Amino acid sequence: MLRREKDMSVETRERMRGGKGTVFIRHLAEHLPPMCRFYAEITLHPGCSIGEHEHLGETELFVFVSGAGMVTDNGTHMKVKAGDATSTPNGHTHSVANTGTDDLVFIAAIIKDPPAA
Amino acid sequence: MLRREKDMSVETRERMRGGKGTVFIRHLAEHLPPMCRFYAEITLHPGCSIGEHEHLGETELFVFVSGAGMVTDNGTHMKVKAGDATSTPNGHTHSVANTGTDDLVFIAAIIKDPPAA
Repeated sequence: MLRREKDMSVETRERMRGGKGTVFIRHLAEHLPPMCRFYAEITLHPGCSIGEHEHLGETELFVFVSGAGMVTDNGTHMKVKAGDATSTPNGHTHSVANTGTDDLVFIAAIIKDPPAA
Repeated sequence: MLRREKDMSVETRERMRGGKGTVFIRHLAEHLPPMCRFYAEITLHPGCSIGEHEHLGETELFVFVSGAGMVTDNGTHMKVKAGDATSTPNGHTHSVANTGTDDLVFIAAIIKDPPAA
Protein backbone atom coordinates (compact mmCIF):
# COMPACT_ATOMS: atom_id res chain seq x y z
CA MET A 1 0.00 0.00 0.00
CA LEU A 2 1.47 3.30 -1.14
CA ARG A 3 0.85 6.46 0.81
CA ARG A 4 1.91 9.67 -0.90
CA GLU A 5 3.39 12.48 1.12
CA LYS A 6 0.61 14.86 -0.01
CA ASP A 7 -2.05 12.51 1.43
CA MET A 8 -0.44 12.18 4.86
CA SER A 9 -1.80 14.06 7.84
CA VAL A 10 0.55 16.21 9.91
CA GLU A 11 -0.28 16.25 13.60
CA THR A 12 1.16 18.96 15.83
CA ARG A 13 1.81 18.59 19.55
CA GLU A 14 2.86 21.36 21.91
CA ARG A 15 5.43 20.78 24.69
CA MET A 16 5.33 17.02 23.99
CA ARG A 17 6.38 14.93 27.01
CA GLY A 18 7.37 18.16 28.76
CA GLY A 19 9.57 19.34 25.90
CA LYS A 20 9.73 22.78 24.27
CA GLY A 21 7.76 24.23 21.37
CA THR A 22 5.91 22.34 18.66
CA VAL A 23 6.46 18.81 17.35
CA PHE A 24 5.33 18.06 13.77
CA ILE A 25 4.34 14.42 13.28
CA ARG A 26 3.72 13.17 9.73
CA HIS A 27 2.03 9.78 9.99
CA LEU A 28 3.52 7.46 7.35
CA ALA A 29 1.02 4.59 7.27
CA GLU A 30 -2.76 4.49 7.19
CA HIS A 31 -2.84 0.96 8.60
CA LEU A 32 -0.04 0.07 11.01
CA PRO A 33 1.37 -3.48 11.25
CA PRO A 34 -0.17 -5.38 14.20
CA MET A 35 2.99 -5.07 16.34
CA CYS A 36 3.65 -1.40 15.50
CA ARG A 37 1.76 1.34 17.31
CA PHE A 38 3.47 4.45 15.88
CA TYR A 39 5.27 5.17 12.62
CA ALA A 40 5.98 8.74 11.60
CA GLU A 41 8.42 11.35 10.36
CA ILE A 42 9.00 13.84 13.16
CA THR A 43 10.24 17.39 12.62
CA LEU A 44 11.57 19.64 15.37
CA HIS A 45 12.33 23.24 14.48
CA PRO A 46 15.46 24.75 16.12
CA GLY A 47 14.99 25.03 19.88
CA CYS A 48 12.14 22.49 20.01
CA SER A 49 12.28 19.19 21.88
CA ILE A 50 10.45 16.09 23.09
CA GLY A 51 10.95 15.61 26.85
CA GLU A 52 12.41 12.56 28.54
CA HIS A 53 10.03 9.60 28.86
CA GLU A 54 10.12 5.84 29.37
CA HIS A 55 9.04 3.04 27.02
CA LEU A 56 7.44 -0.03 28.56
CA GLY A 57 6.69 -3.25 26.67
CA GLU A 58 7.97 -1.80 23.40
CA THR A 59 11.00 -0.37 21.58
CA GLU A 60 11.17 3.02 19.87
CA LEU A 61 13.52 3.34 16.90
CA PHE A 62 14.74 6.71 15.63
CA VAL A 63 16.82 7.31 12.51
CA PHE A 64 17.89 10.91 11.90
CA VAL A 65 17.53 12.03 8.29
CA SER A 66 18.50 15.69 8.52
CA GLY A 67 19.79 18.23 11.00
CA ALA A 68 21.61 17.83 14.29
CA GLY A 69 20.59 17.73 17.93
CA MET A 70 20.98 16.20 21.36
CA VAL A 71 19.37 13.10 22.78
CA THR A 72 19.30 11.54 26.18
CA ASP A 73 19.67 7.77 26.13
CA ASN A 74 18.73 6.31 29.51
CA GLY A 75 19.98 9.51 31.14
CA THR A 76 23.17 10.00 29.13
CA HIS A 77 23.35 13.13 26.93
CA MET A 78 24.74 12.64 23.42
CA LYS A 79 24.96 14.64 20.20
CA VAL A 80 23.25 13.20 17.13
CA LYS A 81 23.19 14.12 13.46
CA ALA A 82 21.72 12.86 10.20
CA GLY A 83 22.68 9.21 9.67
CA ASP A 84 22.70 8.28 13.36
CA ALA A 85 20.07 6.00 14.89
CA THR A 86 18.81 5.25 18.39
CA SER A 87 16.93 2.35 19.93
CA THR A 88 14.99 2.72 23.19
CA PRO A 89 13.88 -0.71 24.43
CA ASN A 90 11.58 -1.79 27.27
CA GLY A 91 12.30 0.09 30.48
CA HIS A 92 14.64 2.66 28.90
CA THR A 93 14.13 6.42 28.69
CA HIS A 94 14.97 8.96 26.02
CA SER A 95 14.46 12.54 24.89
CA VAL A 96 15.43 14.50 21.79
CA ALA A 97 16.12 18.20 21.20
CA ASN A 98 16.99 20.27 18.16
CA THR A 99 20.08 22.18 19.27
CA GLY A 100 21.10 23.12 15.70
CA THR A 101 20.09 25.88 13.30
CA ASP A 102 18.23 23.70 10.76
CA ASP A 103 15.19 21.47 11.23
CA LEU A 104 15.90 18.14 12.93
CA VAL A 105 14.01 15.42 11.06
CA PHE A 106 13.83 11.76 12.03
CA ILE A 107 11.80 8.65 11.35
CA ALA A 108 10.27 7.09 14.47
CA ALA A 109 8.72 3.64 14.86
CA ILE A 110 7.40 2.06 18.03
CA ILE A 111 7.37 -1.74 17.92
CA LYS A 112 5.52 -3.65 20.61
CA ASP A 113 7.20 -6.48 22.46
CA PRO A 114 5.68 -9.94 21.89
CA PRO A 115 2.84 -10.97 24.19
CA ALA A 116 4.00 -12.80 27.31
CA ALA A 117 4.05 -16.57 26.73
CA MET B 1 21.20 2.89 22.56
CA LEU B 2 22.84 5.26 20.08
CA ARG B 3 24.44 3.94 16.94
CA ARG B 4 26.51 6.44 15.00
CA GLU B 5 26.53 6.34 11.23
CA LYS B 6 30.31 5.80 11.16
CA ASP B 7 29.96 2.63 13.27
CA MET B 8 27.29 1.04 11.08
CA SER B 9 28.15 -1.76 8.69
CA VAL B 10 27.15 -1.45 5.05
CA GLU B 11 26.21 -4.74 3.43
CA THR B 12 26.06 -5.04 -0.34
CA ARG B 13 23.89 -7.48 -2.25
CA GLU B 14 24.00 -8.11 -5.97
CA ARG B 15 20.83 -8.65 -8.03
CA MET B 16 18.78 -8.82 -4.83
CA ARG B 17 15.53 -10.77 -5.23
CA GLY B 18 16.23 -10.94 -8.97
CA GLY B 19 16.72 -7.17 -9.28
CA LYS B 20 19.48 -5.26 -11.09
CA GLY B 21 22.88 -4.08 -9.87
CA THR B 22 23.99 -3.56 -6.29
CA VAL B 23 21.92 -2.82 -3.20
CA PHE B 24 23.64 -0.98 -0.31
CA ILE B 25 22.16 -1.86 3.08
CA ARG B 26 23.21 0.21 6.11
CA HIS B 27 22.05 -1.64 9.22
CA LEU B 28 20.67 0.89 11.71
CA ALA B 29 20.52 -1.14 14.94
CA GLU B 30 22.92 -3.52 16.60
CA HIS B 31 20.12 -5.21 18.54
CA LEU B 32 16.76 -5.39 16.82
CA PRO B 33 13.48 -5.26 18.79
CA PRO B 34 12.07 -8.78 19.32
CA MET B 35 9.33 -8.32 16.68
CA CYS B 36 11.58 -6.64 14.10
CA ARG B 37 13.82 -8.75 11.86
CA PHE B 38 15.29 -6.05 9.58
CA TYR B 39 15.91 -2.32 9.98
CA ALA B 40 18.15 -0.51 7.54
CA GLU B 41 18.73 2.42 5.22
CA ILE B 42 18.81 1.11 1.66
CA THR B 43 20.49 2.92 -1.23
CA LEU B 44 19.92 2.08 -4.88
CA HIS B 45 22.09 3.83 -7.44
CA PRO B 46 20.37 4.84 -10.69
CA GLY B 47 19.29 1.77 -12.66
CA CYS B 48 19.46 -0.57 -9.65
CA SER B 49 16.50 -2.44 -8.20
CA ILE B 50 15.22 -5.04 -5.75
CA GLY B 51 13.05 -7.62 -7.54
CA GLU B 52 9.46 -8.48 -6.73
CA HIS B 53 8.97 -10.72 -3.69
CA GLU B 54 6.30 -11.69 -1.18
CA HIS B 55 6.19 -11.10 2.58
CA LEU B 56 4.62 -13.80 4.74
CA GLY B 57 3.85 -13.41 8.44
CA GLU B 58 5.28 -9.89 8.53
CA THR B 59 4.97 -6.34 7.15
CA GLU B 60 7.72 -4.38 5.43
CA LEU B 61 7.60 -0.60 5.75
CA PHE B 62 9.49 1.71 3.38
CA VAL B 63 9.80 5.47 3.69
CA PHE B 64 11.65 7.22 0.87
CA VAL B 65 14.07 9.89 2.06
CA SER B 66 15.71 10.97 -1.22
CA GLY B 67 15.47 10.36 -4.94
CA ALA B 68 12.69 8.97 -7.09
CA GLY B 69 11.79 5.57 -8.48
CA MET B 70 9.15 3.01 -9.26
CA VAL B 71 7.64 0.38 -7.01
CA THR B 72 5.29 -2.48 -7.57
CA ASP B 73 2.66 -2.83 -4.86
CA ASN B 74 0.95 -6.22 -5.13
CA GLY B 75 1.52 -6.11 -8.88
CA THR B 76 0.57 -2.47 -9.54
CA HIS B 77 3.35 -0.18 -10.81
CA MET B 78 3.57 3.27 -9.19
CA LYS B 79 6.02 6.16 -9.13
CA VAL B 80 7.48 7.12 -5.76
CA LYS B 81 9.61 10.00 -4.52
CA ALA B 82 11.10 11.28 -1.28
CA GLY B 83 8.38 11.68 1.34
CA ASP B 84 6.24 8.77 0.12
CA ALA B 85 5.87 5.55 2.12
CA THR B 86 4.77 1.99 1.38
CA SER B 87 3.51 -0.85 3.54
CA THR B 88 3.68 -4.48 2.36
CA PRO B 89 1.70 -6.70 4.75
CA ASN B 90 1.36 -10.46 5.03
CA GLY B 91 0.75 -12.11 1.67
CA HIS B 92 1.52 -9.00 -0.42
CA THR B 93 4.35 -8.53 -2.92
CA HIS B 94 6.52 -5.56 -3.79
CA SER B 95 9.60 -4.43 -5.68
CA VAL B 96 11.49 -1.15 -5.94
CA ALA B 97 13.64 0.35 -8.69
CA ASN B 98 15.65 3.54 -9.02
CA THR B 99 14.42 5.01 -12.31
CA GLY B 100 15.82 8.47 -11.57
CA THR B 101 19.21 10.12 -11.99
CA ASP B 102 20.08 10.47 -8.27
CA ASP B 103 20.44 7.80 -5.60
CA LEU B 104 17.15 6.41 -4.27
CA VAL B 105 17.41 6.16 -0.48
CA PHE B 106 14.79 4.69 1.83
CA ILE B 107 14.40 3.38 5.36
CA ALA B 108 13.13 -0.20 5.54
CA ALA B 109 11.77 -2.06 8.56
CA ILE B 110 10.32 -5.58 8.64
CA ILE B 111 7.94 -6.14 11.55
CA LYS B 112 6.84 -9.66 12.36
CA ASP B 113 3.15 -10.45 12.84
CA PRO B 114 2.17 -11.57 16.36
CA PRO B 115 2.40 -15.30 17.10
CA ALA B 116 -0.81 -17.19 16.39
CA ALA B 117 -3.02 -17.31 19.52
